[in-house]
Amino acid sequence: MAPVAEPRPLLHVATLLSMRKRVVRRRVTRITAGEEATVREDHLAAEEPLEIRVNGRPLAVTMRTPGHDVELAAGFLVSEGVVRSREDVSTARYCAGATVEGENTYNVLDVALGPGVTLPDFGLERSVYTSSSCGVCGKASIDAVRTRSAFDVAADSLVVDAGLVATLPDKLRDQQEIFERTGGLHAAGVFDGTTGEPLVVREDVGRHNAVDKAVGWALEQGLLPLRGTVLMVSGRASFELVQKASMAGIPVLAAVSAPSSLAVELAAELGLTVAGFVRGRSMSVYTCPERVRSVTPAATGS
Amino acid sequence: MAPVAEPRPLLHVATLLSMRKRVVRRRVTRITAGEEATVREDHLAAEEPLEIRVNGRPLAVTMRTPGHDVELAAGFLVSEGVVRSREDVSTARYCAGATVEGENTYNVLDVALGPGVTLPDFGLERSVYTSSSCGVCGKASIDAVRTRSAFDVAADSLVVDAGLVATLPDKLRDQQEIFERTGGLHAAGVFDGTTGEPLVVREDVGRHNAVDKAVGWALEQGLLPLRGTVLMVSGRASFELVQKASMAGIPVLAAVSAPSSLAVELAAELGLTVAGFVRGRSMSVYTCPERVRSVTPAATGS
Repeated sequence: MAPVAEPRPLLHVATLLSMRKRVVRRRVTRITAGEEATVREDHLAAEEPLEIRVNGRPLAVTMRTPGHDVELAAGFLVSEGVVRSREDVSTARYCAGATVEGENTYNVLDVALGPGVTLPDFGLERSVYTSSSCGVCGKASIDAVRTRSAFDVAADSLVVDAGLVATLPDKLRDQQEIFERTGGLHAAGVFDGTTGEPLVVREDVGRHNAVDKAVGWALEQGLLPLRGTVLMVSGRASFELVQKASMAGIPVLAAVSAPSSLAVELAAELGLTVAGFVRGRSMSVYTCPERVRSVTPAATGS
Repeated sequence: MAPVAEPRPLLHVATLLSMRKRVVRRRVTRITAGEEATVREDHLAAEEPLEIRVNGRPLAVTMRTPGHDVELAAGFLVSEGVVRSREDVSTARYCAGATVEGENTYNVLDVALGPGVTLPDFGLERSVYTSSSCGVCGKASIDAVRTRSAFDVAADSLVVDAGLVATLPDKLRDQQEIFERTGGLHAAGVFDGTTGEPLVVREDVGRHNAVDKAVGWALEQGLLPLRGTVLMVSGRASFELVQKASMAGIPVLAAVSAPSSLAVELAAELGLTVAGFVRGRSMSVYTCPERVRSVTPAATGS
C-alpha cells in the first residue's frame, strides 16, 4: 500500500478525520411483547477496524469508532511506552489501497516516529495488538503485560475535592456528542483536578480507545504528563485503564462503576488514586484516599 | 515450564478451577462530599491475566476473572475457528513454574488439540491475542479479523417470542453469582429459545470472556452448534460478539444495550438476529426481525 500523500503535520491530517462517519443510520424493528411491531430509523455508533502501523510495520488492529484516529494511535503508543512527547511522533497518515479496488478506507493509519525514537523490539512473538476495549492485547506472555511509566504519579501532590469528583460523571455525559443519539458509546474525559474544567472528552465503542484518544490529544497539545488531573471514565476501572492513566501521568482515575482487583493492586503499587461508583455525592476510594478531600478545609479547620 | 501433572481429562481439571478466587476483599474509603470519610471492607471482582497456550505454544493473554478457565480457553478456540467439537480438544492443564519461585499461579493454561486437529498457521505476524473484553486482538491485518463459521445460523428456523426475550435480562441477573457482591462483572447466558430456560450463564470482567466461557461449556457438553438458542449479554452487542455467536451456531444475540454498526452489518450478512435495548417488554431488532414474534400466534391468527 502506498501512502495517500506526502507526509503532513499531525494536526493537518486530523482535520480529515472529522469527515469520518461516527454515527450510522439503520432501519430497526421496534418490538413490544403483545403489540404490533413498528419499523423506524435509528442511529448506531459506528464501529470499524483500524490498523495501526508504526514506521510502516503493522502493529495493531483495533475495533474503534472512526474519528480522532491520529489521537487514538498516538495515545496507544503512549500507553505502550513508545512515545511520550509531541516530538516523538513525526507524521501520521492514512494508507491508500486498503480495498481490492485500491480505495482508501481510512482504516489503515501509519505513524512515523520522530528522529531518534525507536520502536521497542517486541519480538516475533510479541507484536502489539489491541481491540475495541483492551490494552493488554499483544502481549504473548504475562511478563509483558506491565508497562513502565516515564512519569511518577505517586509524586503528584494533587488533592481533589470529593464534591468536584462527584460532578464529573454529569460533565462527561454533557460532553458526549454521540451517546445521546446511539446510547452505545463509552467516554473518557481528562479534567483539571482543581477547577473541574474538562481538558478533553473522547468517545468510542471501546473504553480503552476513548482513553487513548484523550491521551493522544494531550500528547499533541504537549500536555504530558497530565499532572494534577482526573481521568473520568463512563464504565468500569480495569487494570488496563490504570496502566494507561499511569503512562500519561494522571494521578486520579475515577469510574462510574466498579474497579477490578488487579486495577486496585496496580494502582496501589503505582501510588495512583482509584475512585469507583462515583454516583450522586458519594464514591468509593480504593487507593491513595488522601488525594480525595471529603470535607472542605474550612469545615475541618485543616 | 513443565506441566503440572500428567494429562487429565478436561472436566477433571475443571474441578480444580472452583478453588480459584473470583472475588477479592479490599479496604475501601467511602467518601461523600461534605461528610466524614468512612472505611469499610468491600468485594472486588477478581481480574488476573491468563496465558492460553495451544500444544505448548503461547497464543493469547487475556485479562479474565479466574474460574472456568478451561471453558474460556475452549470457547476462545471455538471463536477462532480452531475447534468445533468436544473431540477437538484433548486435554487442558495448568503449567507450573509461572513465578520466579516456581509456584503455580494457575494463570498459564495449555490446551492440547485432539488427534488430527491442527492449529491454523497464524504466521509470525499473526499470532492470536485477546484481552478482557475483545475478540479481535491478534489479527495483524484487517483481512484477518473475520472468521468463517462452520455452522449456518441463517438456516436456523427458531422463532422466539418477544415476551420470552424480555424475560432474559432478569434471568441473566438472577444467575449472576458475583455481580451482586462486586457490581463489576459482565454476564453472558445461553437460553433455550423455546422454553426460555438457561443452559449456561457465565460471568467475567470481560464480556467477550463471559461469552467464550459459555460457548466453551457448550463445547464440553457436546452441544455445538447451539441451534434454537438465544445468547443474552449484559452490555452492548459488538462486532466480536456477533462473530462469537455465529461461530457457536447461535441464531439470536440479545443485548441490554446498543449494538454497534459493524455488529449489525455482520449479523445481516450472516442471517443472525440482533436485538438491542432489551428493557421492560420492548426491544429493538436490527436484523432478521422475522425470528422475533411480537404477538402470539393465537392473537394474530397466524
